[in-house]
Amino acid sequence: MLVVMRSHASPDQIDRVLAAIRDMGLTPHPMPGPTRTAIGITGNTGAIDANLLAVLPAVSELIRVTKPYKLASREMKGEDTLIQTPMAPIGPPNFTIIAGPCSVENEEMILRTAEHLASRGITLMRAGAFKPRSSPYSFQGMGLEGLAILAKARARTGVGIVTELMDTENADAVEEAADLIQIGTRNMQNFSLLKRAGKARKPVILKRGMSATLEEWLMAAEYILAGGNRDVVLCERGVRTFSDHSRNTLDLSVIPPVKALSHLPILVDPSHGTGKRAFVPPMALAALAAGADGLLIEIHPDPDHAMSDGAQSLDFAAFDRLLEDLRRLAEPLGRTIV
Amino acid sequence: MLVVMRSHASPDQIDRVLAAIRDMGLTPHPMPGPTRTAIGITGNTGAIDANLLAVLPAVSELIRVTKPYKLASREMKGEDTLIQTPMAPIGPPNFTIIAGPCSVENEEMILRTAEHLASRGITLMRAGAFKPRSSPYSFQGMGLEGLAILAKARARTGVGIVTELMDTENADAVEEAADLIQIGTRNMQNFSLLKRAGKARKPVILKRGMSATLEEWLMAAEYILAGGNRDVVLCERGVRTFSDHSRNTLDLSVIPPVKALSHLPILVDPSHGTGKRAFVPPMALAALAAGADGLLIEIHPDPDHAMSDGAQSLDFAAFDRLLEDLRRLAEPLGRTIV
Amino acid sequence: MLVVMRSHASPDQIDRVLAAIRDMGLTPHPMPGPTRTAIGITGNTGAIDANLLAVLPAVSELIRVTKPYKLASREMKGEDTLIQTPMAPIGPPNFTIIAGPCSVENEEMILRTAEHLASRGITLMRAGAFKPRSSPYSFQGMGLEGLAILAKARARTGVGIVTELMDTENADAVEEAADLIQIGTRNMQNFSLLKRAGKARKPVILKRGMSATLEEWLMAAEYILAGGNRDVVLCERGVRTFSDHSRNTLDLSVIPPVKALSHLPILVDPSHGTGKRAFVPPMALAALAAGADGLLIEIHPDPDHAMSDGAQSLDFAAFDRLLEDLRRLAEPLGRTIV
Amino acid sequence: MLVVMRSHASPDQIDRVLAAIRDMGLTPHPMPGPTRTAIGITGNTGAIDANLLAVLPAVSELIRVTKPYKLASREMKGEDTLIQTPMAPIGPPNFTIIAGPCSVENEEMILRTAEHLASRGITLMRAGAFKPRSSPYSFQGMGLEGLAILAKARARTGVGIVTELMDTENADAVEEAADLIQIGTRNMQNFSLLKRAGKARKPVILKRGMSATLEEWLMAAEYILAGGNRDVVLCERGVRTFSDHSRNTLDLSVIPPVKALSHLPILVDPSHGTGKRAFVPPMALAALAAGADGLLIEIHPDPDHAMSDGAQSLDFAAFDRLLEDLRRLAEPLGRTIV
Repeated sequence: MLVVMRSHASPDQIDRVLAAIRDMGLTPHPMPGPTRTAIGITGNTGAIDANLLAVLPAVSELIRVTKPYKLASREMKGEDTLIQTPMAPIGPPNFTIIAGPCSVENEEMILRTAEHLASRGITLMRAGAFKPRSSPYSFQGMGLEGLAILAKARARTGVGIVTELMDTENADAVEEAADLIQIGTRNMQNFSLLKRAGKARKPVILKRGMSATLEEWLMAAEYILAGGNRDVVLCERGVRTFSDHSRNTLDLSVIPPVKALSHLPILVDPSHGTGKRAFVPPMALAALAAGADGLLIEIHPDPDHAMSDGAQSLDFAAFDRLLEDLRRLAEPLGRTIV
Repeated sequence: MLVVMRSHASPDQIDRVLAAIRDMGLTPHPMPGPTRTAIGITGNTGAIDANLLAVLPAVSELIRVTKPYKLASREMKGEDTLIQTPMAPIGPPNFTIIAGPCSVENEEMILRTAEHLASRGITLMRAGAFKPRSSPYSFQGMGLEGLAILAKARARTGVGIVTELMDTENADAVEEAADLIQIGTRNMQNFSLLKRAGKARKPVILKRGMSATLEEWLMAAEYILAGGNRDVVLCERGVRTFSDHSRNTLDLSVIPPVKALSHLPILVDPSHGTGKRAFVPPMALAALAAGADGLLIEIHPDPDHAMSDGAQSLDFAAFDRLLEDLRRLAEPLGRTIV
Repeated sequence: MLVVMRSHASPDQIDRVLAAIRDMGLTPHPMPGPTRTAIGITGNTGAIDANLLAVLPAVSELIRVTKPYKLASREMKGEDTLIQTPMAPIGPPNFTIIAGPCSVENEEMILRTAEHLASRGITLMRAGAFKPRSSPYSFQGMGLEGLAILAKARARTGVGIVTELMDTENADAVEEAADLIQIGTRNMQNFSLLKRAGKARKPVILKRGMSATLEEWLMAAEYILAGGNRDVVLCERGVRTFSDHSRNTLDLSVIPPVKALSHLPILVDPSHGTGKRAFVPPMALAALAAGADGLLIEIHPDPDHAMSDGAQSLDFAAFDRLLEDLRRLAEPLGRTIV
Repeated sequence: MLVVMRSHASPDQIDRVLAAIRDMGLTPHPMPGPTRTAIGITGNTGAIDANLLAVLPAVSELIRVTKPYKLASREMKGEDTLIQTPMAPIGPPNFTIIAGPCSVENEEMILRTAEHLASRGITLMRAGAFKPRSSPYSFQGMGLEGLAILAKARARTGVGIVTELMDTENADAVEEAADLIQIGTRNMQNFSLLKRAGKARKPVILKRGMSATLEEWLMAAEYILAGGNRDVVLCERGVRTFSDHSRNTLDLSVIPPVKALSHLPILVDPSHGTGKRAFVPPMALAALAAGADGLLIEIHPDPDHAMSDGAQSLDFAAFDRLLEDLRRLAEPLGRTIV
C-alpha cells in the first residue's frame, strides 16, 4: 500500500498519517519528493483497511500494491493446475472440448448429441437443465427432469455432464448429476452461490461476469477455492462493451494475463461470445492459438429449431469440420485435443 | 418484427420466408426495395421465435419492434406508480430519502443513525445485514443478528428498514425484518432470487446491474411483477464503463427514459455511483434535478471507522447540509422531500 | 513512481533496479515486505522513463503517482479560471448559456436564432460552419460562407459566436470569425489541431473525446495551455458505453472530479449527450445542480426541418421554458445565468 | 427504414406519417398490429431524412434497415480486395507482416531494423516520423528528418515504408515517403484528414478508433474510398472498455463481421492492443487463426531503451521466434506469410 499526500500537505498532516499507520501495527516509509510526499507501508500480512487512511486530512490517494487473491494466484502455486474428471482432464497441454446444446429440450436430442460427441472422441457434454433467461416469459429449462435425462445420456454413452447451477435450492441435485458444475456469467458475483460451490465435490466452471475485471473474476474464483474446492476452471464468454457487431465482445486478450497471474485453466465460450453461428469457428481457432485450455461450445442436432440460442449453435456437420480444423492447428501449438 | 433479406435474395428465398411466417400463424408484409426486400410481420400477440426465421437462407437481419416487457411498461399502465410503505411513500411528487450505513456493524451505531434520521424527519433507513463483498476475506455482515438490531431500531424510532436480500435461504427472515427489500446490483439477473422477490409481500428496490441495459433492467423488474409483487422501485447506482475518475459511472441520463418507458419509480444511489464522499452531494442534487424520485444514500456516525464503504459515506453533519440543499432545490422543482 | 517487484525477486534483481534508479539521478526507497519488495522513487522533477525500469528482470509493476498535467491542474493554480469574452464570461459563479443550431443552414435561420437569443438576454450563439459528419454523403456544412453569415448575425445582434474548428487549413478564418473556438469530440486528440489552438487568440471550448478518460482530456487541454493559450473551457458531451437508451452516456459525474483536479471551467452539452429532445431539459437542469459552469445546447427555429441533429434540438418555446426553469434553479444554487 | 408508431397512435397521426413519406417521393407500407402500427418505407435510393419523420406526433421509433456504407460493402464488391504495393500484397490468402519501431529515433536503429526484416523475408516496415502523443511534453517524432531516414532505409534495403499521416500540412511529404500511409486511431474520424487520404496515390491503413463501432469504421473507410482512393486496409488495434488487464481490449471478434460485411483486408496490431510485450505473440497467433490478413507489430533493436512504447515492442529474437510460430500455423490455415 502506498499513501500519496496532497502537494500542500503540512508536516503535521504527514505525521498524523505516519502515526495512523503505526497504530495499525505496520511500518510507514515516508518518501518526500519535490512536490509531494508519498508513504510506503510494509508489514501487512492481510489487507490493510485503506479506509482509515483515505479519510485523513491531506491524503490524496491510496495505491494498493498487493493483489487481493491468494489461492488463485500464480505466486501461491507456480505450476498449472490440471483438473481431473472421470473423463477428459482440463489444463495444459490438453485442449478440452465441451460441447452440447444450450438447454435440455428432450431426451432424444440429448442422446443424439451425446452419441455424436462420443463417436468423435469428445467426452464432455454441456446442456442446461436450469436456464437463466432474461425474460420471465421464456422457456426456463426442464429442471430436475432435465437432470435425469442428462444422467441417462451419461449412463448410456459415458459422456460426462457439464450443467449449470443457478441457485442453492437445486445445488444437491446439480452436484449429483454433474461431472463439472457450471456457474453462469450472471451469477459470477452471487456470493451465496459461490460459497455453496466451494463445498461441492465436483469441479466448477466459473464464467466471467459480463463486466467483470480480471481481478473481480479471480476474486470470485477465490470464494470457491477458499471454501475448500480447489478445482476451478475459468471460462471467458465475452464482455459487455459499446461494440455492437457481436452479441458480446469476446475478450481473448484476457488469456495471457490469466496465465501470468493464475494457475487455473481457462476455457473460451465462442458461442455466447459471438452470438452468431458463422463467427464461432474462427473465434474457436483463435482461442486455441491464444493459449486457452479448451472450449465450451454450443452444438445442436437441429439448430434451426432449438428452444434457445439456436442462432449461435453449430449443427453436427459444422462441429465436425471445426473439430478437424482444431486438430490440425493443435499440433503446431503443442496441444492435444481431448 | 421486421425481416431484412440480403440484397441478392432470390424470389424463392423470399417465398420461403413468407411461408415460414404464415406457418407461424402470422401475416407477412413484403416490401420490395431497389436493393433488397424487407418483410414486416404482424399478427403476433406474444414473442416471435426469431430463430426460426434468422436461420433461413438469404435472411440478413431480424429487427424487433415490440418491447419485451409488459407489466413494467408505461403502455400497460399510464400513470406513475406510487409505492406505499408504513412510512414515506415512493413515487412522484415525493422525493424519498433512504439513508443509513453500508452495513449493520453493531447496535449502537444503528440506533444512533435511526435516531438522527428520525430527528430530521427522514423515515426510511438503509443498512445491510447480509453483505455482498468482492473478497471472501472481507466482513460479510452480521446476518440474522443484524436483522434483529434493525428490528430494534425500527421499534424504538419508528424508522422503516431497507435491507438487502442476497439469497433465497434468508428470504423469509429478510422479508419479515424489512419494510423494503433491496436486491443488489450483482443479483439483478439472479433469476431465482427475482422469482422469490415476486412472492414477497414487501416492496422491492431493484438496483441496476453493473452493465445492464435499460431493457434488461426492466425485464428483471418484470420477473418480480410477473411473480405477483407489483411494488417495484428501480435504483440507478452507476454502471461499469472505461471511465476511471469515479468508482462507477452514475448514469443519471437513464432517468428520463425510465420515466418515458415505465411507470415505476426510480431512486439514485450517489454513494456507490461516485465512491467518493466529496462527490456525493453534487450528484444527489443532480439526481433530484434530473427527475429521480429519491435517494439511497450512505451515511455513518463515524465514516472514518466504518467497516465497509466508509470513503463514500457522509457523516451526519454533511448529511444535514445536503438535506437542506435538497429541500431548497425541491421546491422550484415541484418535489416534496420525504 | 513506485516499482513493485515480483514475490520471488532475488536480492541481485532488486539491486539492479536500485542501480538503474540511481543511474537516472533519482533516489530509490526500498520497502521490503513479507511477500515482495516495493521501491519508491523520489527526486524526479519531470516524468520518469518508466520503460527503462519496466523491462528489468523481476519487475512486476510500475505505479505512477504524479499527474502528468501541470498547467491544467488545480495544484498549479488554486483559484477557478474565469474566461473573459466580449460577451458573457465563463466560470463560477456564472452559468453560461451557449445556444444555437447544429449547423449554419442559411442566413435567415441564423438571424432568427441570434435575435431570439438576444431577446432572452443570452449573448453567445453556437452554430457550425464546418461539420464533422460520420457519412461522406451527409451535408458537410456551408464552410466559409457559413462563417460570413455568423459574422453578419454578430454584427446585427451583438451575440457572440461559438463555432467549430475542424482543421488547420481553416484555422485563420475560424479564429477570425469566432468569439470562442470549439474543438469537437472526434478531434480531442488531433494533436496538430490542438497545437494550432494553442496559438489562437480566442478562447477554446474543448469537448471531451468519446472515450477519453479525465486524464486524457486534461492532457489535451494541456496541449492548448502549453501552446500559450490559457483560455480553455472543457465541455462534457457524453461518452461511449454499452448503454443504448441514449445516443451517448452523459457523464455528469465527471464534473466534481474536474472541479477538484483542475481550475478550468466546464460546460455540459445535453443535446449530444442524450440525442433526444425530450431528455434535454432534465439533463440541463441536472448539469446545473451537479456544478457545471454552463450549457452548450442545440436550439433551432424549426427543428423538424433541421439539416442535422434536429431530433435533439429544442424549438424556441421549449428553450424559453428551460431558461425559466434554469433561472429558478440557479438562485438556490448560488449561480447566475448569463 | 421502418417507422414504429406509439401504441395509442390515432388514425390521423398515422395518416400524417403516411403523407410525409409520400411527400418525400417514397412509398409507405402500413402494417397494423394488435398493439401498434409499423410503417415500412421503400423507394429510397439514398438516405432518408429520418428527422422529418422522427418528430411527427405519435412516432415512437425509426429503425434503419440499409447500411450507410456502399463502396466499402461486400454487397457492392463480392470478391476480396487485394492491395498491391511494390513489396508484399495485402489481402487473402496472404498474411502480411508489417513490423518496426514505434518511432524513428535515429538512422542507425532504422537501418538495423530494415536490414533485419529484409534478412527474414519481410518487406514492409512501420515507423512513425510524426507521433501522436497524449502529452505535449513527450517526444513528438523526428518529423521530416525522420521521413528522410525512412527513405534511406528503403533505398538501401528495398523494404517498403508504412508511416503515419497526422495532418494535412505534412500530407505531401508523407505520401511521397510512404508505400502505405497509416491513419491512427485518434484520427479515424478526422474527416479533413480522411478526405486528403482519399486523394492520395498510396494505399491507406485505417486504424479503428478507440471506441468506434464497426459501422463508424467502415464509414471512415467510405470517406477515403469515396474520395477516389480504392486501396484501404483496415487495422484493429484494441478498443476502450472497462477491462484493465491490458492497455486496450483487442477485439479479434471484429474480424469475421468485417469479412462478412466488407471486401477490404484487415490487419491486427497486437502491440497497441495488449500494451505488454509478453502478451503480443499469443495475440498475434490468435489474429492469424481468427482470419486476419496480417499484422502491424512493434519491434525494436533495443526495446529497453526505446523512446516510446518500448514495453510493448519485441526485440529481434522474440520477433524471429514469433515469425517461426506464425509460419508453422499459417500452413494448416491456408495462409502464406509475406
